[in-house]
Amino acid sequence: MKTRRADRLVDMTDYLLNRPRKLVSLTHFAERYDSAKSSISEDLAILKRAFHERGIGLLETLPGAAGGARFVPYMLQAEADEFINELVTEVSDETRVLPGGYVFLSDLLGRPDILRRVGRLIATQYINTEIDAVMTAATKGVPMAQAVATELNVPFVIVRNDSKITEGPTMSVNYLTGSSKRVEKMELSRRSLPTGSRVLVVDDFMKAGGTIKGMMSLVGEFEGTVVGAAVFAEGRVSERVVDKYTSLIHVDTLTSDGNGITVAPGNYQSEIYTTEL
Amino acid sequence: MKTRRADRLVDMTDYLLNRPRKLVSLTHFAERYDSAKSSISEDLAILKRAFHERGIGLLETLPGAAGGARFVPYMLQAEADEFINELVTEVSDETRVLPGGYVFLSDLLGRPDILRRVGRLIATQYINTEIDAVMTAATKGVPMAQAVATELNVPFVIVRNDSKITEGPTMSVNYLTGSSKRVEKMELSRRSLPTGSRVLVVDDFMKAGGTIKGMMSLVGEFEGTVVGAAVFAEGRVSERVVDKYTSLIHVDTLTSDGNGITVAPGNYQSEIYTTEL
Repeated sequence: MKTRRADRLVDMTDYLLNRPRKLVSLTHFAERYDSAKSSISEDLAILKRAFHERGIGLLETLPGAAGGARFVPYMLQAEADEFINELVTEVSDETRVLPGGYVFLSDLLGRPDILRRVGRLIATQYINTEIDAVMTAATKGVPMAQAVATELNVPFVIVRNDSKITEGPTMSVNYLTGSSKRVEKMELSRRSLPTGSRVLVVDDFMKAGGTIKGMMSLVGEFEGTVVGAAVFAEGRVSERVVDKYTSLIHVDTLTSDGNGITVAPGNYQSEIYTTEL
Repeated sequence: MKTRRADRLVDMTDYLLNRPRKLVSLTHFAERYDSAKSSISEDLAILKRAFHERGIGLLETLPGAAGGARFVPYMLQAEADEFINELVTEVSDETRVLPGGYVFLSDLLGRPDILRRVGRLIATQYINTEIDAVMTAATKGVPMAQAVATELNVPFVIVRNDSKITEGPTMSVNYLTGSSKRVEKMELSRRSLPTGSRVLVVDDFMKAGGTIKGMMSLVGEFEGTVVGAAVFAEGRVSERVVDKYTSLIHVDTLTSDGNGITVAPGNYQSEIYTTEL
């Protein structure tokens, strides 16, 4: 039975939102709703306008009978700035500071409402970039990796310090932890990542960047290409071993009284919002 | 400026899908679109019908000027059966069997298209259940926990064997691993979970269920209530220490030739689809 336009609009929105960056053909929608392709084209024009006006994302439409639509999520800078200000306020809390100057962030990285926006914000930087996989380090990078991978609609892979017997053959690299200059080992299941993949590296927290740099060299061992690096928070350090990365917030616990915490927006504005969306 | 109905339907769909199980007031939508509440009510009736017809979820609407709408995602059994059959086919692959009878599943638990459906399927069981948090064990339970927590729109917390210095004060329990009968310790940051929470426990793989049982006792230490347990895959064991759980697939690698793998649907049908949606 032919589906009404109103119902089509609701279902097409759900359908496309759940399949970011995948091309869905006009034919597919025409069959799904038993409707003419010309009607579907009109529906897509409405979706495109509403997605644009509400800052939901870009709906790329390919015209013609063989055409279709591809939804690419993004976040406009106004929403991003508001979100980051929320994060800055949440993290600016002295009770988060732990011995050694570490900062408790696990609660925020366990909140779906925050993770959804983290994913959309980071994906915004890669609207026009082909990415095959997101890589992160166990355990605390996982939520951010999953959030970003969900918006990019690509798999994420988890690098570990302690490879488990349930991972099968692994590839490993040694790396220098940035702050304490210890040599450590990280490994990834061979089967997780096809060789030659284009990889976005993400993590929850970056100080000197040793872990990020280690993951980058691991991508090299898989003959892949690093398309970028993104972290939820960056700390203050005298020397960084990674020069190109995106951070959402900047956290500094090294204040004179040894207890305080200073939080500021990270470099996301200059990394992500270089051109108008 | 007053928003057109077609544009409202698209944006309301996006808005509600991104806020599962939260009540959004008519007033909020009326202001967002500069439209009369009566028009918004008509919109919501369309969404409710389309969500129902397409198996997207339940849109609970509260009538009257003080009313609103709450979107509760679910998955109909036909879609669930199709999804589980897909998983059974994917996992039925001898090359997944690792020494010791372990099964490689990390690739599937790193795919957003699979995780989205895992989340919707497990959330279906708890449509009418109040849940405050999802709990899992590091590292491999995290993707599933995040997927389920996203559909329930509640935080997830990660229990660890090796508590890091960035977690702050922790609560710990000792537990008996089901298969090898070793005593181990698992801990959770005190700050992660408010006391008295209603908790859904999830994990990627369950054999005897020692880890699940350990997490259940940890919930008790936080004076919480376990509302249920769900795993992606269950293995074959002679004795199980957890009696009530939901599994998506059942994996058996203990076949006579020592190499094969037998995969079947888990108990999700009898646990989730007991009443008509």
